[in-house]
Amino acid sequence: MRVLAKQIAALAAESKEGDLVKEGSPVQVELKGWVHRVRELGGVSFVMLRDRSGVVQVVVEGKADLSLESVISAMGIPAPNPKAPGGAELRAQKIELIAKAETDLPYPVNGDPEKVGLDVILDNRPLSLRNPKIRAIFSIQATIIEAFSEYLRGHDFTEMKTSKLISGGTEGGTGLFEVEYFDTKVYLAQSPQFYKQTMVASGMERVFEVAPAYRAEKHDTPRHLNEYVSMDVEMAFIESERDLIELERGILTHVFAQVGKKNAAELALWNATVPSAAQVASAPVIAHDDALAIAAEEAAKQSPGGKKAGATRAFEINPEVERLICAWAEREKGSDLVFINEFPRKHRPFYTYPMDALRTMSFDAIFRGLEITTGGRRHNEYAALLEVLPKFGLKAEDLSDYLMVFKYGCPPHGGFAIGCERLTQKILGLPNVKEASLFPRDRKRVRP
Amino acid sequence: MRVLAKQIAALAAESKEGDLVKEGSPVQVELKGWVHRVRELGGVSFVMLRDRSGVVQVVVEGKADLSLESVISAMGIPAPNPKAPGGAELRAQKIELIAKAETDLPYPVNGDPEKVGLDVILDNRPLSLRNPKIRAIFSIQATIIEAFSEYLRGHDFTEMKTSKLISGGTEGGTGLFEVEYFDTKVYLAQSPQFYKQTMVASGMERVFEVAPAYRAEKHDTPRHLNEYVSMDVEMAFIESERDLIELERGILTHVFAQVGKKNAAELALWNATVPSAAQVASAPVIAHDDALAIAAEEAAKQSPGGKKAGATRAFEINPEVERLICAWAEREKGSDLVFINEFPRKHRPFYTYPMDALRTMSFDAIFRGLEITTGGRRHNEYAALLEVLPKFGLKAEDLSDYLMVFKYGCPPHGGFAIGCERLTQKILGLPNVKEASLFPRDRKRVRP
Repeated sequence: MRVLAKQIAALAAESKEGDLVKEGSPVQVELKGWVHRVRELGGVSFVMLRDRSGVVQVVVEGKADLSLESVISAMGIPAPNPKAPGGAELRAQKIELIAKAETDLPYPVNGDPEKVGLDVILDNRPLSLRNPKIRAIFSIQATIIEAFSEYLRGHDFTEMKTSKLISGGTEGGTGLFEVEYFDTKVYLAQSPQFYKQTMVASGMERVFEVAPAYRAEKHDTPRHLNEYVSMDVEMAFIESERDLIELERGILTHVFAQVGKKNAAELALWNATVPSAAQVASAPVIAHDDALAIAAEEAAKQSPGGKKAGATRAFEINPEVERLICAWAEREKGSDLVFINEFPRKHRPFYTYPMDALRTMSFDAIFRGLEITTGGRRHNEYAALLEVLPKFGLKAEDLSDYLMVFKYGCPPHGGFAIGCERLTQKILGLPNVKEASLFPRDRKRVRP
Repeated sequence: MRVLAKQIAALAAESKEGDLVKEGSPVQVELKGWVHRVRELGGVSFVMLRDRSGVVQVVVEGKADLSLESVISAMGIPAPNPKAPGGAELRAQKIELIAKAETDLPYPVNGDPEKVGLDVILDNRPLSLRNPKIRAIFSIQATIIEAFSEYLRGHDFTEMKTSKLISGGTEGGTGLFEVEYFDTKVYLAQSPQFYKQTMVASGMERVFEVAPAYRAEKHDTPRHLNEYVSMDVEMAFIESERDLIELERGILTHVFAQVGKKNAAELALWNATVPSAAQVASAPVIAHDDALAIAAEEAAKQSPGGKKAGATRAFEINPEVERLICAWAEREKGSDLVFINEFPRKHRPFYTYPMDALRTMSFDAIFRGLEITTGGRRHNEYAALLEVLPKFGLKAEDLSDYLMVFKYGCPPHGGFAIGCERLTQKILGLPNVKEASLFPRDRKRVRP
């Protein structure tokens, strides 16, 4: 019977001493996996065998003669051993080599990844992903995507898959990658913005999509990717961005709960925790201008020898403000999640619904010092859109497909997107967002 | 209380006559949606109101004065009416116009889409998606994606999200779209082939991905899209393609069952049915050469005045063979699903695992006359890959990232992909696969 590494402890506990006699006994099991580490001691080899479920100790008589990372099958008897990791081991009766690994590994993949440079990890992605701690990042990411989708389906949202090849950008065409498309040129979509609005107006009312999005931005920072996984939501019949903030609260509460439940072992590897439901519930909603003032005060508090509060006040929500506002919320509200709303009109795209002459019904979500979401209510009236386009240097004739959505009856609506890699990064406390992308793309990196 | 169109019948059945007295009574509800159709008769207007859940009749005293496709709110009392669609209606006490639609609709979106040309439907996608029958296609597609993912998660598969920007193709670089990427050129991925093999070898063992894939093929046929949604699976520790065929049987059984359960109304709109579990179980597995022979016999049977059986034998599985083999399986095995395996080596990519000198451990799945899946076991031994590359005109130095996967221990593995739009198309019996893509891309179509 083939079993997984994580089952050995339970099987060892179940098996009676009398069963552990000889090969072919009913408790003999087979493990298949990779040679994670080998230690020889007094004529016995201890092979740490790694499979998708974990790592378990396999005890082999004599010299194992197995190169690291080789794939093997180990037949044997599960047995308790308080000294073994997990309190159990497999006493091997037979080892078979399934695929031999060459011995010139470019770097020791079984070590602590925090002691290895990021470039080494990313250059050797096919190998570095074999490290349990690195692989844990992507087990958690899978749970995030599952929980996001599950929550929305449970609230009557429909999953959609839209084209990533578009004939123009949603914000005027800067920051787009160009694609040679037969005899013409198209662009990689920065977001499914127009499509999700179309689907809301189609009568689906509530849609979501998890798909790649592209930004041709040249800056190379620990918070940017040129290709990322965008978790998009759009919803009809809302009043304001406050309905969206409540929806995101619900999503994040479910995501954190599922990660906490399904990925306890992976979180432990990174010494990480997820916010509780109570913490998400207590995340404050702060108006843009108030957030800048709070950040300025917080900056003064953090460096009392520095400038007076107010003097350092930023003009917009920048990475430093994001860090400061989260530090403030953590201390004052017991939550490292903050929603900022009422962004100025000049800082938001043309489709953002105005609140008054200066402000919009838009918001960001900042989690552990990093913006993970931008969203808001959108214009839904044809006349209002026609009026606002020229102010943003846009022409109605370039947006005819988009405008059709509004000309023929579009309900009040809005939505947002959560950056999947950023959320993964911040749950685990990874210094660089690239660590949370399986095969990250930046200005210089297009492989593996 | 805001309710959905589909709830009106149940609410009407519940309410007692005594409750239906006047505005403000406890049974007054609010519907929000689009004006699907309006009929005036004897001083009363019958407004068909459409929302995400369906269409319901709203009765308004006097002339409704509502343009088609406008978004309205209707407050009123649910009441039984055997003559109304669904056996109930909303007797409106108040109608509010939320968003007025212009009256110059480019075509009547509430008609039968089968009477409208495909180009009109696709050119006006933002409007044509408002047609309940068209929207039904994508409700079913959402269920397909959900059920595919759910089945695999239930079998310990991990969802992954891989880059769509690659530095070279998996099959030598033909058929790829080129992307201007800062100072270099990259390509849009045809499939996550290399990445899913990498993830299997990473120790995840079982992975899946639902994501866009790109083919720069010039032919414009009812079975091709230049951008499609690929539902990919890859799995370690298999013996042959037969393990994969059984996995696909399990996936399809679950997908069909879920579509049958969740989308009964949408299937009815198209007069479509899904195969039963018994039909999927009885789908035959036919070797490539036998399939060609069967198709030749079937062709002779279908046109008895034509050429003799054998004379029309094709050299490869082409669309006509796919149609014939499904007709044969439907009649002989009671299943319109067929698996064809043992494809010749010359018809399969370099990474396909050989069965003998001529044949491979590969397969296709043909459903209702159309190939929906290609897959197989892959080479997992480094030496074997190095030997096979030159035979396909490939160089090891161009594939160094990929080869790293095999150099350091890769288990026997394989996988396949299901074309999401093709499966959707064939479930509903749509003549053209473009109808099953929200925003299809072909050689001439890059908008909307």
